[in-house]
Amino acid sequence: MTPLDVPQHIALSQFPVLEDVLHLGGIRLTRLVERVGRTPFYAYERSHIISRIATLRQTLPEGVQLHYAVKANPMPALVQMMAGLVDGFDVASGGEMKVALDAGMAADRISFAGPGKSDQELRCAVAAGVLLHLESECEMERAARIGGELGMTPRVAVRVNPDFELKLAGMKMGGGPRQFGVDAARVPAMLQHLAALGLDFHGFHLFCGAQNLSAEAICEAQRLSVQLALRLAEHAPAPLRMLNIGGGFGVPYFPGERALDLPAVADGMDQCLRQLSQASPQTALILELGRYLVAEGGVYVCRVLERKRSHGQTFLITDGGLHQHLAASGNFGQVIRKNYPVVIGNRVYGGPRETVSVVGPLCTPLDLLADRMELGRAEAGDLVVVLQSGAYGLTASPTAFLGHPAPMEVLV
Amino acid sequence: MTPLDVPQHIALSQFPVLEDVLHLGGIRLTRLVERVGRTPFYAYERSHIISRIATLRQTLPEGVQLHYAVKANPMPALVQMMAGLVDGFDVASGGEMKVALDAGMAADRISFAGPGKSDQELRCAVAAGVLLHLESECEMERAARIGGELGMTPRVAVRVNPDFELKLAGMKMGGGPRQFGVDAARVPAMLQHLAALGLDFHGFHLFCGAQNLSAEAICEAQRLSVQLALRLAEHAPAPLRMLNIGGGFGVPYFPGERALDLPAVADGMDQCLRQLSQASPQTALILELGRYLVAEGGVYVCRVLERKRSHGQTFLITDGGLHQHLAASGNFGQVIRKNYPVVIGNRVYGGPRETVSVVGPLCTPLDLLADRMELGRAEAGDLVVVLQSGAYGLTASPTAFLGHPAPMEVLV
Repeated sequence: MTPLDVPQHIALSQFPVLEDVLHLGGIRLTRLVERVGRTPFYAYERSHIISRIATLRQTLPEGVQLHYAVKANPMPALVQMMAGLVDGFDVASGGEMKVALDAGMAADRISFAGPGKSDQELRCAVAAGVLLHLESECEMERAARIGGELGMTPRVAVRVNPDFELKLAGMKMGGGPRQFGVDAARVPAMLQHLAALGLDFHGFHLFCGAQNLSAEAICEAQRLSVQLALRLAEHAPAPLRMLNIGGGFGVPYFPGERALDLPAVADGMDQCLRQLSQASPQTALILELGRYLVAEGGVYVCRVLERKRSHGQTFLITDGGLHQHLAASGNFGQVIRKNYPVVIGNRVYGGPRETVSVVGPLCTPLDLLADRMELGRAEAGDLVVVLQSGAYGLTASPTAFLGHPAPMEVLV
Repeated sequence: MTPLDVPQHIALSQFPVLEDVLHLGGIRLTRLVERVGRTPFYAYERSHIISRIATLRQTLPEGVQLHYAVKANPMPALVQMMAGLVDGFDVASGGEMKVALDAGMAADRISFAGPGKSDQELRCAVAAGVLLHLESECEMERAARIGGELGMTPRVAVRVNPDFELKLAGMKMGGGPRQFGVDAARVPAMLQHLAALGLDFHGFHLFCGAQNLSAEAICEAQRLSVQLALRLAEHAPAPLRMLNIGGGFGVPYFPGERALDLPAVADGMDQCLRQLSQASPQTALILELGRYLVAEGGVYVCRVLERKRSHGQTFLITDGGLHQHLAASGNFGQVIRKNYPVVIGNRVYGGPRETVSVVGPLCTPLDLLADRMELGRAEAGDLVVVLQSGAYGLTASPTAFLGHPAPMEVLV
């Protein structure tokens, strides 16, 4: 197989390289390391996130509301910045709701989804005035009871388990038996009950999958979502005020993956918005994005402790690893392990280049950040940078595993 | 396929069931939940761990030293108890070394292995007087330099990357190119250098794999380890005082797996010990076990929040999940997801039984604790218990994921 036949990582140019050193937020990586004071750490670039959101606003049809899914990266400083950039937040737990409220987002622009909300979480959300995405009839009844106890009317939307699947989604979350939402066929009866319980109905939430790189598949799912929502709206106790069609926009992580064709998605959304505006002019169309807003603006930085040779293969042993970046090690929902894009941050192109494996300090062969990748030749002290690491990085990792200190996070 | 053809979980009887309720440490589970004060939590049973170690002492040949690998479960109270039960600890980080020393284990009975020790960790270990398992020539030189700076002679052993593989190991860690230890062929030259550096040489550490359920494979690896160590000892600057042959004893997690045949392992160890005693009578043979000591004495307990139906399938939605028990969700080193053994702790046999999936509160289909298992019929408020959860449970999980509170741990 010639090198041309081997799938390659997409060329990533979000961070400038000057004198062979990566720059984040205009800061030379070697200086940023000194500023942070220790490795490993995660760094998220403000300007990348701001320009990603600006591009979305310019490309997507006017009128689409943009929400941030806090679960992708709940770092408080980042969420605080997001509060001034997006139209609302979606949270997945009581803990995330606190971060969202502390960041100054108005409660009526926060929605709370998740199949296992506790009574305590429902109580906090009703007291806060946050919109509950009801995931089941049982949750509806619990919310109504809690509203009664508090003397407040819960604001609710119904999360629908759609009767179609999003094709090619990295992670399917609709169609067939699911723990998320209410089967579409049962929604009309639920809405009747919801009205009888006196809940304040706002609309629907549909979510078909995550990490999708196919514009065609996303457009089809959005089209079907709007159609399903309009059918179900006929059974609603009040006109739809909002329709959250989820997000699912993917970013390229692995060799052979290409960036999402955003203009093509925008064309599809334009048609969706027209259809929705005609049939239900008072309904806000909400697009909820997490990963797509923050993943590409973030990196994970660790330091080479040693070069090591074993049976003809070279390993870079670093102070970072699986315990701090589970997804990059291939242990978070991947069936076959593939390499994240990785560079030596202070020798990006390198003089000499070599094929090496990058591993962490843990006593397990799972602790692998790069498996036989071509990188600039690195020595002890050099900096390994895992790109595309701004979403589902630190919080999706078992940081206490083997008792190492937790990594830092900085917003630059 | 008849039910007899489907692989089943091994019958687990470590915890008595009285009136259909599981008992841990002599405490009825429903009462234990009240004592802990909230769900989810991990509970580890003292008596199970004590009797497991007693069985090992009775079955294994006299003279084998038993070490506990703290990484399997570093809960301080458990490590404290272990300090009185085993002959030494192995630690994998500076953090674990602190836990081990705080538990009162003598420094000269603590060893520190791991391929990515930082200078800071080496410094702490030398200052403490802990035995360093050197993983590379570079680490040897760093240890010697740090010893010089501190005016102390580091106590060291050499971790060898063996020139054979442990067959059938759940996780292979020897043979071929590895980040662990020094290739056997390079050890003689390293030992010469080690003597020149004036380090205090104690012996070798060999580790071939983990989670092995085949006595035959373990015996073969141990036999080969002793032979390799004796060959390498001819190049050592001092007689071998210790030989750590790792552990790798597995426990049955998944359908079709059987418990390890401990008497068969003991027979093999008896031969190893004889061979070692004849050739090198002053050498202590160390068996290092983590999972095998603590996994089966621990459970993870969470509570059913809701029963949910979707497209003909029943889900139990619980307050626990992937973020607190990553291994049980199938996302920690498993290629094909299989179910851990799970029971409804307060309806173990149940009146009616049913096939259900147990899921957690997270917004991801990865959050699955049991996939279509037959369990006693459970209602909201009932207790889901994941068995075999005493090792690589809490600390191997991304507890911050989606912002839920961390689970408790109790030793009962």
